Order: sequence, then C-alpha cells, then structure tokens
Amino acid sequence: MRQLKLNKAFTLIEPGPVVLVTTHDGRKNNIMTISWTMVLDFTPVFAITTGEWNYSFAALRKKRECVIAIPTVDMLNQVVGIGTCSGADTDKFAKFKLTPMHGKLVKAPLIKECLANIECKVIDIVRKHDIVVLEGLAAHMDSERRETRTVHAVGDGTFIVDGRKLDRRKMMASKIPDDL
Amino acid sequence: MRQLKLNKAFTLIEPGPVVLVTTHDGRKNNIMTISWTMVLDFTPVFAITTGEWNYSFAALRKKRECVIAIPTVDMLNQVVGIGTCSGADTDKFAKFKLTPMHGKLVKAPLIKECLANIECKVIDIVRKHDIVVLEGLAAHMDSERRETRTVHAVGDGTFIVDGRKLDRRKMMASKIPDDL
Repeated sequence: MRQLKLNKAFTLIEPGPVVLVTTHDGRKNNIMTISWTMVLDFTPVFAITTGEWNYSFAALRKKRECVIAIPTVDMLNQVVGIGTCSGADTDKFAKFKLTPMHGKLVKAPLIKECLANIECKVIDIVRKHDIVVLEGLAAHMDSERRETRTVHAVGDGTFIVDGRKLDRRKMMASKIPDDL
Repeated sequence: MRQLKLNKAFTLIEPGPVVLVTTHDGRKNNIMTISWTMVLDFTPVFAITTGEWNYSFAALRKKRECVIAIPTVDMLNQVVGIGTCSGADTDKFAKFKLTPMHGKLVKAPLIKECLANIECKVIDIVRKHDIVVLEGLAAHMDSERRETRTVHAVGDGTFIVDGRKLDRRKMMASKIPDDL
C-alpha cells in the first residue's frame, strides 16, 4: 500500500461505497461493515452512523480511533459476512481470511486486501443521533490492484457495483479544491 | 409520481447517489446539489452536510422542511449546473428546465423530472458539524421512467454511474427490516 495524499481521502467516501471499519480494543482486532457514512469536510472529516448495537462501538468509544477500509466488488461476500456476524464471538480477520496490517498512526489495523485504508481518530460522538465524527490522519492506497470497482449497498440486501465514470471536471472547476 | 412506502425511502439514499435538495423560503423555490448525505435510521431519518455557505441553508433553517429529489444519469449536466450557481441570483427551476410539483406535506417542491422525491422536515441542526437531520414524511417514485441509474460524485469533478446489481438478500436476511 502506498501513501495517498490526505486531501484526496474524501474522494474514497464521497461516492458512498460500503466500507469496512476496523477497531482494536486493546486486546483484539475487529471489523464492522458500515454503509451509513458521509463526508463532513475535505480536510478530511467523516461521519458514520453507529451505536451500542454494534459490538465495535465500545472499542471506538474507548480507543477513539479506527480505520476505514474500502473493499471492492470481489470482496462482497466477505463484506456481507462481516456485517452479519459479531466480533463478540468471532475473529473476523481469521474467519474471512483478511490480513491485518500495522498503520502509521493508529492501533486499529489496515486491511491488506482492501483498495484503500484511511486511519482515523474519533473527534466527536453525537449520541443524540448515533453519529461518530472521524478525522482522517493518514490514507493508503493499493495502486497495483486490478479490481477497483466498489459496491453501494441499497439496504434491501442488494448492491450496486460501480459502472462507467463520467468527467465533469471543467464544469465543476469552481467547486473543486485547488490542490486536489 | 406514485407514492412509495415510506419504509423503503432509505434505500434511495443508502447507495450514496448525488441528490437535489429543494426548499421554499416563503417567496421562491430553490434547489441545491448535495453529495454529502447519510442514512441515520430506517424510519427514515437522514443527515446532510450543509451550512451558511449554501444559499438554501437560510430557507432550510427558517422553514424547517425540504425535498430530497433523486436525479438519474441523464440529468447529470443539470445536477452539476445546479451545484455551480446560486439561488441568490438564479431561478434554478427555470434555468435548468425542471418542473416543480406540489408535495403532500411540505411547501418545498418535488422535481417532476427526478426518479424519486422524499418530502422531509428538519428535526435537528447540529451546528458544530454542519449536519442537518431530516425526517422523511412521504416518498414518491416515478415507476414509469426508463432511466433509473443514479450517479455518485467522487468529489474531484468525476462521477460514477450505477452499474450491475448484485443480490445478497439470502445472506443478509437477518439484517433486513421485516416489512421491507
């Protein structure tokens, strides 16, 4: 994985792919599947919706850090599997044959098999709405991967795979950060 | 537009398409393009990131209602155009040849040309993070439209069009609301 400029990290989340969020609670690694995410700022700052109903939430609240990993379509069965079992009784890295890697700044692991990983710290938890606010600290990208298509959860058990890419950079020049 | 069961409305937002958000400030209609959205609850409750920098924000704060409209790929130039001019000096419905329609419960207009429209009320504004929390009140779907592919903003001026759909309903049965 190569380092990705941090100011580009929001472009991994903005299209709305389903993501994997890893935590380390001081004793063991865990992974959750999250589809409810949002960019809050280019710097980058992200929001995810989660709460007590996710086993990972305790580690997030205690350690105040995580990694957002971006899986691709060839990993969909792992993504769904991770989302339908609990870290309370499952070592998800072992069960789903994923490889934890050390990050630079947080103890939560990167996922080697993913397209990209963003190391994050928790900067706020808005309990009223179950929103966890994350600041990206470092980003990594596997630039040698052939499969780069992400998947978007519909919420009814179906998923939409990335299709064609359309370019409107000229039309949008006034709205794109200069250094992107 | 036919009514869409409200419990399905979150499935329009969860995949992360770029959306149009309409407001009515008591005098005139307006539209903004929003890519930073998130589902907060199935009921449905949504979050969008916006603030003073958007002209529409004043109407949202004052009237506490809006419509989230879902455009499709054939509307991309309109979507980008709407996102790169301001309602302060532009009638966006006229400029982009869109048709405002009366909703059932809010004064913000539906957009006739869109695939779907969700009438919403503002239930909270988290100023610290520029998050507006919306509750969906009614949803409408154009079920006769041939083009149903939405687009996902990357954030750098490019957009990803919906591709293939994959079905994992059986694997996810335990996680899908019963009445969906």
